[in-house]
Amino acid sequence: MSGLNVHPGIDVYELDTPALLLDLDAFERNINKMAAFFKDSPVKLRPHSKTNKCPIIARKQIEAGAVGICCQKLGEAEVMVQGGIRDILICTEIVTPLKISRLVNLAKHADLKVVVDDIENVRNLSEAAGAKGIVLDVLIDINMGRNNRSGIDPGSSVIKFAQELVKHKGVRLRGLQGYEGYMMFVNPLEERKRECLEIMGRLMETKTFLERAGFNIEIVTGGGTGTYMITGRYPGVNEIQAGSYIVMDSKYATIEGVDFECALSILGTVISRPSKDRAVLDVGFKSASTDSGPPSFKSAPSLEYKSGGDELGRIVIKDPSLPLKAGDKLELWPSHCDTTINLHDNYYAIRKGKLEAVWPIAGRGKSA
Amino acid sequence: MSGLNVHPGIDVYELDTPALLLDLDAFERNINKMAAFFKDSPVKLRPHSKTNKCPIIARKQIEAGAVGICCQKLGEAEVMVQGGIRDILICTEIVTPLKISRLVNLAKHADLKVVVDDIENVRNLSEAAGAKGIVLDVLIDINMGRNNRSGIDPGSSVIKFAQELVKHKGVRLRGLQGYEGYMMFVNPLEERKRECLEIMGRLMETKTFLERAGFNIEIVTGGGTGTYMITGRYPGVNEIQAGSYIVMDSKYATIEGVDFECALSILGTVISRPSKDRAVLDVGFKSASTDSGPPSFKSAPSLEYKSGGDELGRIVIKDPSLPLKAGDKLELWPSHCDTTINLHDNYYAIRKGKLEAVWPIAGRGKSA
Repeated sequence: MSGLNVHPGIDVYELDTPALLLDLDAFERNINKMAAFFKDSPVKLRPHSKTNKCPIIARKQIEAGAVGICCQKLGEAEVMVQGGIRDILICTEIVTPLKISRLVNLAKHADLKVVVDDIENVRNLSEAAGAKGIVLDVLIDINMGRNNRSGIDPGSSVIKFAQELVKHKGVRLRGLQGYEGYMMFVNPLEERKRECLEIMGRLMETKTFLERAGFNIEIVTGGGTGTYMITGRYPGVNEIQAGSYIVMDSKYATIEGVDFECALSILGTVISRPSKDRAVLDVGFKSASTDSGPPSFKSAPSLEYKSGGDELGRIVIKDPSLPLKAGDKLELWPSHCDTTINLHDNYYAIRKGKLEAVWPIAGRGKSA
Repeated sequence: MSGLNVHPGIDVYELDTPALLLDLDAFERNINKMAAFFKDSPVKLRPHSKTNKCPIIARKQIEAGAVGICCQKLGEAEVMVQGGIRDILICTEIVTPLKISRLVNLAKHADLKVVVDDIENVRNLSEAAGAKGIVLDVLIDINMGRNNRSGIDPGSSVIKFAQELVKHKGVRLRGLQGYEGYMMFVNPLEERKRECLEIMGRLMETKTFLERAGFNIEIVTGGGTGTYMITGRYPGVNEIQAGSYIVMDSKYATIEGVDFECALSILGTVISRPSKDRAVLDVGFKSASTDSGPPSFKSAPSLEYKSGGDELGRIVIKDPSLPLKAGDKLELWPSHCDTTINLHDNYYAIRKGKLEAVWPIAGRGKSA
């Protein structure tokens, strides 16, 4: 346990603030609900740990049936391997000599897979792996539309890439990554389904091209919290990368078909009530991310949160008789779980209003 | 030095990325320029350390003439005291029993001052200080217009507050804080000056009321990087809280009259060039804050940065012949220094393209 007076069993309102709270009952229901979705399916969950940045949480997901985890950055994967996780897919390209050296060192201690979309990168990975006496598992990263991130365009041209790839003996082709990230927040569900099925069709066509050309495509991975119910039932996909479901946030809560519970909140303290129509909270940009909009009040929905700078928030009070005063504690829903979690050093894991544990966010800031 | 292969003298492009770079020449010119402004003035600089979160930087500011520092949160002040800083103004109200206990413990090891705007809070501070056998220095926090944060409205009503305050023997009234935060980004300078002079007039009127009522108002503190040249020359003000000047950012760089150099950048690596018109960078929301807009490219101004998620950015390439490829490194200007610094664990201090030192951002995440 970290910090003064932070002991299991204390009331949540005894915590110093800002504090990132994790409601364990809701969190466990989320784990179990997603695990149940995949239980009798050929598809496995490989939850994205960029959301939670916490080996304790990754272990709980694996205990509930996940096949391993995804990491967005090598630094996260290093933390997860140190935290006892062995089966990791790194979902972004690892391209510099220094990072490739870190990658092959880590691969000696874990079952690592990494995505590729460039033959020069494949050559560099292969040489580094060969020099260490290992073979590195790779997945071809496929551009899933809207040209918004990395990846090779789907279609028959991927065959040529795969043919070049397998000439490099330090790497082994394991499958395809087709992450349809930009679809996560498409509402309504029917529209998301239509777009998702269309692009998944192109991914499966690519898989078929490769198989006909003699390649063994073991793994096809994609999907997120917004699309797991579509992609996770699409024939041929066998791993799903959903991460946010574990804690959710106020943006995901507006997405049709994403029926998980918001388990994460930020506990703040009113530090000033200078007038009837406003108060000041100790939660600013450095405790609640705003890339998906401001946080909102959990415990008092009539209150409105407005940015008040790096370390403070302004509370707009519509009911002037509200007895809100300096020292009062309020809970906020984050608008974006990933970026809010990355601001904090610990989760304060709460059950029925009492502190049960403090979980370090060991991957916080490990963006390199 | 932290990390693999991170040694003084290496080339900046050998650093693993994302990395937060501090250009030491520009940084030192900023320190010296601001110090020169205050050199023969009755006004002292008390730079805000919420920007830099780094005791090494705070010590350099004090060596250059600053009277002490400001902190926005108690957790920051604790880090700064551990880092050898003694004279600290905490610019936000400290109201909970736990924080008050931390405050009076810290005050035994440092010359702390804290702002107040509520008599019940004054009573609590006084009792806690008395129980520790100390007297805590306090400044009355004055609402500087637009009702956007904490503070008592300026004017004669502050007299009554001060009369109540001095009944509490565990605290000592040292002065007034009038921080005109919302004015920092008012352009043009003439408009900012007009607004600033108006509200400073009300602050000085309040000071006069208090002095006529027999109170000794030693310290009048306010001002920031956007207003130091106005507030810092306003008769009666004697401390200025500017912080961002030390490193600047692309938003402050657009503000008329703020003539400091952008000394901070984010080094990133291209991880994919999937097509002629786009590339993917390893810098996302978790390495460059976006509360003041996206970062922009320092080394290649024709490139446009677009958000690509938590850990990635998309690069829009207008010139398709640009030879940008996976592994290439690019530097970005942050849009907001405070919130970007708070994402990183270290500054990589660079001089003429070579690493000179790694400075831990010891106050990162110390928002409680």
